[in-house]
Amino acid sequence: MIKEDAMTRRSEDPAEGAPTTPGKPSARARKIHVEGNRGIRVPMREVLLEPTRCLGGALEKNPPIRLYDTSGPYTDPAVAIDLGRGLPDLRGEWIRARAGCDISEPGRPSAGGAPGIAFPARRKVLRGRSAVTQMHYARLGEVTPEMEFVAVREGVEPGFVRAEVAAGRAVIPANINHPELEPAVIGRNFLVKINANIGNSAVGSSITEEVEKMTWAIRWGADTVMDLSTGENIHETREWIVRNSPVPIGTVPVYQALEKVGGAAEELTWDIFRDTLVEQAEQGVDYVTIHAGVLLRHIPLAAGRLTGIVSRGGSILAKWCLAHHEENFLYTRFDDICDIMRAYDVTFSLGDGLRPGSLADANDRAQFAELDTLGELTRRAWERECQVMVEGPGHVPLDRIRENAEREDSVCHGAPFYTLGPLVTDAAPGYDHITSAIGAALIGWFGAAMLCYVTPKEHLGLPNKKDVKDGVIAHKIAAHAADVARGRPGARALDDAMSKARFEFRWEDQFNLAFDPETARAFHDETLPQGSAKEAHFCSMCGPRFCSMQITRDVREYAAGEAPRRGAGEAPRRGAGEKRQESVEEGG
Amino acid sequence: MIKEDAMTRRSEDPAEGAPTTPGKPSARARKIHVEGNRGIRVPMREVLLEPTRCLGGALEKNPPIRLYDTSGPYTDPAVAIDLGRGLPDLRGEWIRARAGCDISEPGRPSAGGAPGIAFPARRKVLRGRSAVTQMHYARLGEVTPEMEFVAVREGVEPGFVRAEVAAGRAVIPANINHPELEPAVIGRNFLVKINANIGNSAVGSSITEEVEKMTWAIRWGADTVMDLSTGENIHETREWIVRNSPVPIGTVPVYQALEKVGGAAEELTWDIFRDTLVEQAEQGVDYVTIHAGVLLRHIPLAAGRLTGIVSRGGSILAKWCLAHHEENFLYTRFDDICDIMRAYDVTFSLGDGLRPGSLADANDRAQFAELDTLGELTRRAWERECQVMVEGPGHVPLDRIRENAEREDSVCHGAPFYTLGPLVTDAAPGYDHITSAIGAALIGWFGAAMLCYVTPKEHLGLPNKKDVKDGVIAHKIAAHAADVARGRPGARALDDAMSKARFEFRWEDQFNLAFDPETARAFHDETLPQGSAKEAHFCSMCGPRFCSMQITRDVREYAAGEAPRRGAGEAPRRGAGEKRQESVEEGG
Repeated sequence: MIKEDAMTRRSEDPAEGAPTTPGKPSARARKIHVEGNRGIRVPMREVLLEPTRCLGGALEKNPPIRLYDTSGPYTDPAVAIDLGRGLPDLRGEWIRARAGCDISEPGRPSAGGAPGIAFPARRKVLRGRSAVTQMHYARLGEVTPEMEFVAVREGVEPGFVRAEVAAGRAVIPANINHPELEPAVIGRNFLVKINANIGNSAVGSSITEEVEKMTWAIRWGADTVMDLSTGENIHETREWIVRNSPVPIGTVPVYQALEKVGGAAEELTWDIFRDTLVEQAEQGVDYVTIHAGVLLRHIPLAAGRLTGIVSRGGSILAKWCLAHHEENFLYTRFDDICDIMRAYDVTFSLGDGLRPGSLADANDRAQFAELDTLGELTRRAWERECQVMVEGPGHVPLDRIRENAEREDSVCHGAPFYTLGPLVTDAAPGYDHITSAIGAALIGWFGAAMLCYVTPKEHLGLPNKKDVKDGVIAHKIAAHAADVARGRPGARALDDAMSKARFEFRWEDQFNLAFDPETARAFHDETLPQGSAKEAHFCSMCGPRFCSMQITRDVREYAAGEAPRRGAGEAPRRGAGEKRQESVEEGG
Repeated sequence: MIKEDAMTRRSEDPAEGAPTTPGKPSARARKIHVEGNRGIRVPMREVLLEPTRCLGGALEKNPPIRLYDTSGPYTDPAVAIDLGRGLPDLRGEWIRARAGCDISEPGRPSAGGAPGIAFPARRKVLRGRSAVTQMHYARLGEVTPEMEFVAVREGVEPGFVRAEVAAGRAVIPANINHPELEPAVIGRNFLVKINANIGNSAVGSSITEEVEKMTWAIRWGADTVMDLSTGENIHETREWIVRNSPVPIGTVPVYQALEKVGGAAEELTWDIFRDTLVEQAEQGVDYVTIHAGVLLRHIPLAAGRLTGIVSRGGSILAKWCLAHHEENFLYTRFDDICDIMRAYDVTFSLGDGLRPGSLADANDRAQFAELDTLGELTRRAWERECQVMVEGPGHVPLDRIRENAEREDSVCHGAPFYTLGPLVTDAAPGYDHITSAIGAALIGWFGAAMLCYVTPKEHLGLPNKKDVKDGVIAHKIAAHAADVARGRPGARALDDAMSKARFEFRWEDQFNLAFDPETARAFHDETLPQGSAKEAHFCSMCGPRFCSMQITRDVREYAAGEAPRRGAGEAPRRGAGEKRQESVEEGG
């Protein structure tokens, strides 16, 4: 089924957006397209490896490694990027050709916004007259092109993807108004995904910066991006992001709705929320957080907490409920929300508005009462063929993480679990990408399908580009560690290739296989800057005179062949030492 | 038992070595000394917290938080530091007054080394005529001052410390030639400790740099430091480090022994090794890695591995064994080694010379065969009243970490487990402090007593100061997360204090409670640089107009008192919003 694109890509990386050292094209780490059924072409990053130099000088080939590639057309030298036009239309034909789906094309709603910041290109907006969700087709037994695409990406059969989506155990967030999307699947039986949050706020950050953060985040491996903007120009910022995003875009519509009522949560209405949701659905948002589980009766459960309600959406809805003494309108209008979601295939991300904001509040009654409600809502959304993820904490001590994963699986009937962290200590501001990566690795291993990143700026300030990169890579590590622990097909191939390259002193291969080739190379060069050091059969830790890796090679050689020819008490063997000296001289 | 030192310390931090922002004295994060029995004074870091501003304006006191302090006299304004003289003699009297212990005072062995790099101050060398180990006294039922000291540090009873040391479940690495030491206990029933490796190599780094790395590492929380020098001036480098170290110093004596035979492992002899061990014991090294478990019969088990033998010590001994076709002399001479160790109270760190260097090699026959031997050696060392830790891997996938911890506990009879990482993926060079912190948190939770740090430069180059700090803090996070998960007394107090400060917008308290106050403050200031922002009741994530923490306060107030006075459908409540505006203006 999988064959390489006949049109082999140019191997040079473009100056911007390439996952190897910027400005230094790498012939050995290149973008390829793997072809699936129906002409579907799935981008991957292929790393060509140098051969192993065997004893005696023979060369043994090392097969190339293909890596999941989230970076989109930005790393494709064949695609000319024009942010003002947006990315190429990958899915348009798939969507329009869909069997059993009527599509109307209403005019685009007024964009608003100041002149000069509106997205330049205009486009038509699609709306399904009935359900146009991936779950709808999956239940009909239809394998969509989106399912084909993610099957190739994950190295599984398309039929398996269809079955998982039909059962609700996986989602493919893919709004019909986001044709630029390269689809991804999120579910407990697929590779663990990570999300990066971006978004401007009242305090700072421009549209340009946010688009840059998005392309930067996916370059380092973000599988989805949430635009959490709360400041000026929310609509326009989102339009720029969606049009230029090859990954699913998520939002929290109530943030924008709150802006429309001047920040006064009590003044929110269903009409304002509905219009906002439709506005975002028409723009192409792929999944939205809906805090429909914050029920009136749950709110008092949070009053005695150390840190109360820390979810922004949760506190908005809690405030609304208390101000009106009415049930959360997201709950009472849930069926109406489903009707919107299914008409565009916007995936639910059922928000955990009562997630714990501190270790002290983890796994408490408020959190689990809301989770029960999210389980009920999951079923109701599935009845309407809507795709559903369920959001999870937060701050949780190591020993209480497993309970979260198992409980969500059971209460929410296997719907994909999308967690924030969890952070395993509250005490490390400035390093919360690490406190979160620890919890994320665990919960990924225990079954979470997507991990929301946390940056070093969490609790302190707004992330800049470096923070975004640090957050993405920390969680890429967590996701990959979870994939390895869960025995995902092919996951450990990367580790094995890296370790073999390390053992054989193939430095360039190590850099190219790394999650962050640039940093790996820079760190190596800091101690051994000479170009020749990358050919050296030693590293800076032990230096040229002695190297444990080298000794192991001697030991292996010795154990394999020479031992029988030698008796105890013979003169110390010099050959290996001499050979070692040779390779050092070669390198130095 | 615990009372604060009558002589209250000056609250200003010294310019260097202070755990708060350098150059900015903090009156609210200060060094104190807590007094135990027999006049023992234990250093701690005390963070004074601002009061909570209650509704209505009343102030509610928040008790100060006392934190374990590894930074030594460097952060004590009352101590004048002179690196050429070394730290004050804290333990000298304790050691000389020890009941049941005769001490001889031989002359110091020739220091060697080039002029100008030798440590200036001379001192006498102590050697016990019989066992002078903490285990020896513990078994006699004696609570030593070292045990008193660590009991205060850990907040436990001295008798409990004694019992754990007597049983071998804990060690107090405290060479009688290291009187400058502030003792620490390492064991599965105490706070999880972390170790930082330093040391020059053939490729770079000077004595000054190494001493600086040591003081830098303990400033950020390293509980012990290993000097792994392999280059020039090994003896002198170590002397500078030990004389200036308030934390236990560990080494790997075979590294220096190898230097003495010009790097040719085959030429090592028992005599050379023994002399090296005695030389280091006389200098005051507190624990040493002894790779006595690399047996001749284990070596072939590693030949088929992906990455063979990656332990430097392990490969040295493997090479020696194969060259001579003889059993490892560290194993055959183990009793002789014990005799040296017990005469100075040098603690064994039984090395895992066959630890896996890649996920592919984790938990294999080679690793576990060696572990069985380490279990046997643990018993033999205990028979001679030597203190023992056992070293562990390495590279291990998430799902195989627990097996490591449980197996070590069982096979090694509860001896403290001292692990390197483990790294949960091989594929993240440049970020291995994170891959290691993930595994370290897990194995700490599962029972490891000390976690060896890994820096971002692992596999790539030599760590600089920034790398040392990054490595220490990542593993401090892992150790603390494990302490919280294991329910260590008082561990979560730090998290709760931080979360309460966060919820109440006490920014200065958050900075002072952080593992890295400087970075937390700098990150906050990057988005909101105004000094007044530290008084603000909002943060940069949501901005002044809306804040979920603030809303929760409103919700809590509302739920507590006002709800009964209001009916459904009333006009939206404005009071809270107005008050919020006030505090924003106060802050901005």
